[in-house]
Amino acid sequence: MSGLTLDAAADFAAELADTARPIIRRYFRTGIVVDSKADDSPVTIADRSVEKALRALIEARFPDHGIAGEEFGPKNLGAEYVWSLDPIDGTKAFITGRPTFGTLIGLLRHGKPVLGVIDCPILDERWIGGPEVATALNGGPMMAPIEKPIDKAILTATSPDMFDAAEAPRFAALKKACGLTLFSGDCHNFGLLALGTIDLVVESSLSDYDYLAPAAVIAGAGGILTDWTGAPATLGSTTRIVAARDPALHAAAVAILSA
Amino acid sequence: MSGLTLDAAADFAAELADTARPIIRRYFRTGIVVDSKADDSPVTIADRSVEKALRALIEARFPDHGIAGEEFGPKNLGAEYVWSLDPIDGTKAFITGRPTFGTLIGLLRHGKPVLGVIDCPILDERWIGGPEVATALNGGPMMAPIEKPIDKAILTATSPDMFDAAEAPRFAALKKACGLTLFSGDCHNFGLLALGTIDLVVESSLSDYDYLAPAAVIAGAGGILTDWTGAPATLGSTTRIVAARDPALHAAAVAILSA
Repeated sequence: MSGLTLDAAADFAAELADTARPIIRRYFRTGIVVDSKADDSPVTIADRSVEKALRALIEARFPDHGIAGEEFGPKNLGAEYVWSLDPIDGTKAFITGRPTFGTLIGLLRHGKPVLGVIDCPILDERWIGGPEVATALNGGPMMAPIEKPIDKAILTATSPDMFDAAEAPRFAALKKACGLTLFSGDCHNFGLLALGTIDLVVESSLSDYDYLAPAAVIAGAGGILTDWTGAPATLGSTTRIVAARDPALHAAAVAILSA
Repeated sequence: MSGLTLDAAADFAAELADTARPIIRRYFRTGIVVDSKADDSPVTIADRSVEKALRALIEARFPDHGIAGEEFGPKNLGAEYVWSLDPIDGTKAFITGRPTFGTLIGLLRHGKPVLGVIDCPILDERWIGGPEVATALNGGPMMAPIEKPIDKAILTATSPDMFDAAEAPRFAALKKACGLTLFSGDCHNFGLLALGTIDLVVESSLSDYDYLAPAAVIAGAGGILTDWTGAPATLGSTTRIVAARDPALHAAAVAILSA
């Protein structure tokens, strides 16, 4: 990796997540939120403080790397390496006091995810992995995969309300085909899919910083994350995501979602 | 309380929750679940093992008390004191590896909840409270309440799919009136409502062991949990629940749900 090994990148990504944790914990459940978009809401302050801290670390260590962050916009996206940052994925979970939100840190090389971190600071759960790095949860392995027919599959989506008029009937068809559908979860769903307790994750209305780190984590668990047509999910390429560990289940879901 | 003080009951309820925790933790994320209703699924084994252990403790300490449990049916429900037990509230969360499920332990006197425990063993979060016992989360206080208009209120329900044809339009009307609606959460939502980060919890298709302990916890936080008509929720009285800390918000929700 032209001087940057994946091991070194993983260590640095973990350092970024370690930096984010205490900032986020400081603001979790610290006030009743009336307007989460207000500049002085706990989630807004935590979001911005984390991204500022992570950017400073990246700029100090890798000044030639690019950054695609949620809060402060893109920087040098043509670079060989680009860091994708979402300080708090799951802001609605955060403001309702639910611990199932996380910090997403992805590393892209030539626009493709090579490493991802899903870090849930309140749950103390951290997934790290990538296409060439076996995904681990707090250092431990993923569950052994098993094949399930789609009518036994567990599907999650963060909210039934995120699908637009074109997407809703396609999601409804997939939901009907699956054994069980659960809502909410945000990035934690991608982690659980890598682990093996969720079989399909479908989302829409995403930004790339919502799926780039998960794409790497899922690849490192032998799975696949694509857009609804089955095409790779890269920098800025889509807003609609479908992920599975089992390729046959992924193909079945793509067939329904792209019908 | 005819020999049983609320302090002693709270200590005993905490002992019950302490007993449940290691059993549940032993089975969480221990296997990929294909059929959660199977006798040998981790959630079924954990559910039954916990209820068996709690019943044995109750029968040893308070042989004249009644027990209303999810797994092994009712015993002596005409007793002055009845314990309401739901070993794992949120079995779908449990099987998908989500930590937002819990053990519910309620104590009724003459059919009314006087004490409740919501214990989330993976999150290490335990709410204890009742109408005459200020609710605490891991020993700490609830947030100071603030008034919000309904169009800023945060509403949760475990699933949009639980409402029947008569209930669905009434829930939809309430959802439209609220500022934000999030799904999933099970008993954890009631705990967060007591804490102050969720404003309204609406459920249907419940059994009494799903709401009796939460009713006590919410009462101890100054809130109210009733059926959709605003009537008290007691042993076997309803399957539809609406809870809030703010009486005005509760009344506004009841008006919409009972329209």
